[in-house]
Amino acid sequence: MTLLDKITEKVLAQIDDTGFTQSGAFNLRHNGIALCHGDSEHIKIKKKQDKPGIDIFIDGKTDGEEVHIPVVVDASGMTDVVYNDFYVAEGANVTIVAGCGIHNSGCNESRHDGIHTFHVEKNANVRYVEKHYGEGEGTGTRVLNPVTEVYLGKNSVFTLDTAQIKGVDSTVRENNVHLEAGSKLYVIEKLMTHGKQEATSNMMVELLGEGSSAQIVSRSVAKGESRQIFHPRAVGKNRCHAHVQCDSIIMDHAEVSSIPEINAKHVDAAIIHEAAIGRINDEQLIKLRTLGMTEEEAEGVIIENFLN
Amino acid sequence: MTLLDKITEKVLAQIDDTGFTQSGAFNLRHNGIALCHGDSEHIKIKKKQDKPGIDIFIDGKTDGEEVHIPVVVDASGMTDVVYNDFYVAEGANVTIVAGCGIHNSGCNESRHDGIHTFHVEKNANVRYVEKHYGEGEGTGTRVLNPVTEVYLGKNSVFTLDTAQIKGVDSTVRENNVHLEAGSKLYVIEKLMTHGKQEATSNMMVELLGEGSSAQIVSRSVAKGESRQIFHPRAVGKNRCHAHVQCDSIIMDHAEVSSIPEINAKHVDAAIIHEAAIGRINDEQLIKLRTLGMTEEEAEGVIIENFLN
Repeated sequence: MTLLDKITEKVLAQIDDTGFTQSGAFNLRHNGIALCHGDSEHIKIKKKQDKPGIDIFIDGKTDGEEVHIPVVVDASGMTDVVYNDFYVAEGANVTIVAGCGIHNSGCNESRHDGIHTFHVEKNANVRYVEKHYGEGEGTGTRVLNPVTEVYLGKNSVFTLDTAQIKGVDSTVRENNVHLEAGSKLYVIEKLMTHGKQEATSNMMVELLGEGSSAQIVSRSVAKGESRQIFHPRAVGKNRCHAHVQCDSIIMDHAEVSSIPEINAKHVDAAIIHEAAIGRINDEQLIKLRTLGMTEEEAEGVIIENFLN
Repeated sequence: MTLLDKITEKVLAQIDDTGFTQSGAFNLRHNGIALCHGDSEHIKIKKKQDKPGIDIFIDGKTDGEEVHIPVVVDASGMTDVVYNDFYVAEGANVTIVAGCGIHNSGCNESRHDGIHTFHVEKNANVRYVEKHYGEGEGTGTRVLNPVTEVYLGKNSVFTLDTAQIKGVDSTVRENNVHLEAGSKLYVIEKLMTHGKQEATSNMMVELLGEGSSAQIVSRSVAKGESRQIFHPRAVGKNRCHAHVQCDSIIMDHAEVSSIPEINAKHVDAAIIHEAAIGRINDEQLIKLRTLGMTEEEAEGVIIENFLN
């Protein structure tokens, strides 16, 4: 077992809720290098030969297993670009825990761009969990630009559970999902920004196959002078169903922009979008304060509930 | 009283629901020329000297009066651009009935671009009704590109009731509204397209003043191979409230795109957006057909109810 330093362990605890252990199928990328890795009976991880990154092969007998592939960057001034490809075989049932944490104690920008591509075969069920987190006493910014490309085969199910907890100065997220007949997409996005942070979330959901469906729930909190831009798109090219819901709380001098796009190109495409931006619920605040909480504590509870 | 020809009378009946009579304050523009016009005690209409169009002065004592300013284009191949400015004095209460109808029996494009600017002083209440309509046995296209710019003074109220009934081959609508403190905007938009028609509706609502509010309801039906694009924007720069709702029915091989944008730049800006695109309600169809209606009749009833 590879011995990990304290900073890496601390960051891992933030980005991997279920706990990172060096068992089963796993790969820990640290400052651009695979620090440790393991395969399981049904899941094999191979280093790419042509560019940085790994190929993850999940066979059809995988049933309920987890793969953990966290990334930690703690070298100030580093730009780490990685390409990870997931090949999920017909009928597999798998949970993939990704996530990236940056610890920047220097004065230069630390940046991680993870480009993840999922090739999901028919009847497979994938749960993909990613957490983004930044910390560090340095003045260097922490930048995360994840790109997630998902191809869903017939009757497959993909759940994208993505969260940016805190400490990320700048992020531009791209999620593109292409759905074949009968496939289902569930997206849960949580985003919190503070200070002068900026976050852009772009999502393109292409409902190509008959009977495909997508349900997207995005919740965000913008504090301080931070700025958030949401640009989810759902395009229905067949009999399909999509529901996009974005709710944001703004605080202080923050700014939130929501620019969804719903596009029906087929008479049996049914697409719904709902978005709301507003301040924190005053009645809840008052209620919690009468219970003895400070304003800050009460806000904390409301935000936690809103995001979870 | 000016005698009007049959085509003009027929088109007027389509675009002016309350009935166009040559009394009170009115101005009928026909193929780029004011065919007849009249003032009332409180409302004066003056021809612009520097460009085509009129200035309409509505004084503060106006209370419940209507002004009718329809436009008819029946010369094939004509492009008519007109600039109308409305000066609504403090406390006035007025209904403005505009609207444009094109009768094109030729093979060339007939087009009308009406650029309307409203200067609404405080406490005034304006109801602005516009209908757009095209007809004619010719192969020439009928194009309408209305631009409406509205400046709302303190505590004023503006209701925009806009409808495109049928027969308009191509339209790009621009509505820009700027709201000062306490002012209120209500928009009701109805749009129906058929054949190979194309319609784009852009709207920008800028909530500048404290306590300003906007409520926008847009309903559309896209038939045949027609295409519709909606792009409503609501920007809150103060304590304000906005609700944007867009519902569309698609039929046949039509295509509808809805790209709203809500942008909160103030902690007390509350903005909500809802959009839905879907096919005609099947249950209602079946119910009406069991009552003896043909499929076409049943669809007609459902569409009429949806739009009204």
